[in-house]
Amino acid sequence: MHWKNNPVEKIKAWESDLADNHQKFIKANLRLDLTRGKPAIEQLALADGLDGILRGNYLASDGTDTRNYGGLTGLPEARNMGAEWLGLPQEEVLVSGNSSLSIMYQILHVGAHYGFGNTPWLQQSTPPEFLAVVPGYDRHFAICEKLGIKMVNIPMKADGPDMEMVEAQVRRSQVKGIWCVPKYSNPTGNIYGAEVVERISRLGNQAASDFRIMWDNAYAIHDHYENASELTNLMELCRLNGTQDSVFLFGSTSKVTLAGAGISFLGGSKANIKHFIEQMAYWTIGPDKVNQLRHTRFLPDFAAAKKHMKQHAEIIRPKFELVLRKLDESLRIKEMGNWISPEGGYFISFDSLPDHAKEIVRLAGEAGVKITPAGSTFPYRFDPEDKNIRLSPTYPSIEDLSMAMDVFVNCVQLATIRKHLGE
Amino acid sequence: MHWKNNPVEKIKAWESDLADNHQKFIKANLRLDLTRGKPAIEQLALADGLDGILRGNYLASDGTDTRNYGGLTGLPEARNMGAEWLGLPQEEVLVSGNSSLSIMYQILHVGAHYGFGNTPWLQQSTPPEFLAVVPGYDRHFAICEKLGIKMVNIPMKADGPDMEMVEAQVRRSQVKGIWCVPKYSNPTGNIYGAEVVERISRLGNQAASDFRIMWDNAYAIHDHYENASELTNLMELCRLNGTQDSVFLFGSTSKVTLAGAGISFLGGSKANIKHFIEQMAYWTIGPDKVNQLRHTRFLPDFAAAKKHMKQHAEIIRPKFELVLRKLDESLRIKEMGNWISPEGGYFISFDSLPDHAKEIVRLAGEAGVKITPAGSTFPYRFDPEDKNIRLSPTYPSIEDLSMAMDVFVNCVQLATIRKHLGE
Repeated sequence: MHWKNNPVEKIKAWESDLADNHQKFIKANLRLDLTRGKPAIEQLALADGLDGILRGNYLASDGTDTRNYGGLTGLPEARNMGAEWLGLPQEEVLVSGNSSLSIMYQILHVGAHYGFGNTPWLQQSTPPEFLAVVPGYDRHFAICEKLGIKMVNIPMKADGPDMEMVEAQVRRSQVKGIWCVPKYSNPTGNIYGAEVVERISRLGNQAASDFRIMWDNAYAIHDHYENASELTNLMELCRLNGTQDSVFLFGSTSKVTLAGAGISFLGGSKANIKHFIEQMAYWTIGPDKVNQLRHTRFLPDFAAAKKHMKQHAEIIRPKFELVLRKLDESLRIKEMGNWISPEGGYFISFDSLPDHAKEIVRLAGEAGVKITPAGSTFPYRFDPEDKNIRLSPTYPSIEDLSMAMDVFVNCVQLATIRKHLGE
Repeated sequence: MHWKNNPVEKIKAWESDLADNHQKFIKANLRLDLTRGKPAIEQLALADGLDGILRGNYLASDGTDTRNYGGLTGLPEARNMGAEWLGLPQEEVLVSGNSSLSIMYQILHVGAHYGFGNTPWLQQSTPPEFLAVVPGYDRHFAICEKLGIKMVNIPMKADGPDMEMVEAQVRRSQVKGIWCVPKYSNPTGNIYGAEVVERISRLGNQAASDFRIMWDNAYAIHDHYENASELTNLMELCRLNGTQDSVFLFGSTSKVTLAGAGISFLGGSKANIKHFIEQMAYWTIGPDKVNQLRHTRFLPDFAAAKKHMKQHAEIIRPKFELVLRKLDESLRIKEMGNWISPEGGYFISFDSLPDHAKEIVRLAGEAGVKITPAGSTFPYRFDPEDKNIRLSPTYPSIEDLSMAMDVFVNCVQLATIRKHLGE
């Protein structure tokens, strides 16, 4: 029997129990945080070998003294690393500093103010728009908002964005791009299916010539299990369709080595990389090549990177399984929300019943569990259904995470029942 | 007797000797480079202690785990370092990645596209302009050119920019800023005098409210001699005049530790720093704090930094003295050019007679000595008098430098005499 079919007194008694629990949590003065996707200290420590790894040998494979100025493309060995991660040839990869977000901002600012060979987006007759797969990554959306690029929501389905809608949208020439996190999407955790990737690879033939797919493959090698699903190689398909200039790919070691001190990768056609290097020359003399060299010495090949990621998985997997178990035990049969069980990445995306998310987040905050504000996963921080909540299980300890999830599932039930009783 | 007063045959014979020398240099197949201000390998090696200095201790003084995300201002100890170098309190300093040029671009792109509390520069009724002290740094000028900010040349005098002209210009409200390298200016090597700095500190009261002084103190501690001249503290004077929001200050460790892998400093009023941090949040999650920590462990206080710079001076000083001696011996009494003898920094600025610079650079290139193209030290790469040539003595060995200067002074004489004979 569904809980809603119980007599109202029984439901009220249940509400009272949940409220008691909630008061107990409040009195416990918890300080727990499920907001940002940060690696745990144990994960960071896996990369402690980076500092000091050079042992006085600062020369890259091509003889570059990494300590001096220059070299906009990054070191050859670092480009190889990015090439393997992103599934590209070396010449289609450029390696930058500690933030792939910075490259994304730079790319869109080039599109907006300088153009990709066309009139800059912001100087065209119709204001530029961008497609935002929702729920998605708040910092992607913030870049568009800052640059004055209007966003259009595209719903995320199990196998990726709603492609019917995407294809209809890109026919409008003011649509200049789409944000995608194709593997272990932020926050939904799903992987784009082969058919979706194939359809995305054709967009460049349907859209304006300065339309760009922002393919943020942030979790390219961040599997929690062996034999993880493979993401279809977008660029290979683009090459077949002659659309290779329609895509920029991104990756980084932020969640492989050090979150604040890694290296970042930009992938793109040779023409796009060349054009971007011409732009970069205005704002930098080159990236930190010493840190690039550290990274390539630390993870000399793809096998080493994969092996390193297994150590991460050992730390992360139990946390994800704990969160999923707590959700399952408390909420599944009560039908108080939906979520998928990701096989990698950094997030679990919880959908409450419509119009519950803000109240759940508010209750959790009251009980000392900080949760990313409801709405954050949508452009303009507005979730039209007020249901999506992003949970980030990696940073807290198992004990803290367990406590935080006890609070959270109690809040979900409390909010849902109160809403039901109020209706 | 001035050489020009010799009989023409004697001058022709001399030209012939110089041309013979030139041919010998060409046949020697030299590959020498006086273009960019890069540290020599021996200088870079002074910082080899950086890599591995952390010994597993990644915690900053405030308990921050530098390996993880976050912290837009930079570490407290790194802010202290910048504060001492730039002569500011800690809260007026922000520490970023390996490129102060990037911060400069970001600042001007904020002014141009988002504004400093006013309408963005590029959206105001009159197109923005910037004052360029000439000769100056090509990459400063390139930023303005890229952003579409028109530059107005301001002649450099012995004690800094021509302030009469600067003060006249800033009364025009479309003038949005001025580029300054106040100590060991690039390329002239002079230091702005106290009176000039005082007058610069008043510009904020005469100019538009979104006028910004770009005070690139790149050579703040880069003295070649003990008891170096002190640069007057601009910000202290700005505070007295209530113009502290009119200035951004820049510095970096690029020519202290590693040219490609240092840390950079932005100085500004608390209001300006706060505003800039709000902007930065759109394009980065934070700088590489691990590298900041390395730097503060390596140079724990100002005395350590000063001591470190003395080691640089030991390497650089003989190179500068060699260049100046070669210029002096070959050109001084012949009045074939002008230069000043800098007491620090990275450049010697040579002024040929008018309309000679391009030909001198061409001849040097022919003889295997690469010199920064004539005109590079001016906006739009146009030196109206075609006379300024920037010499960068730091990178080559003493032997190579000596050879390069032999070629150079021969080219100056050859170009000058040929021009004279042709007239």
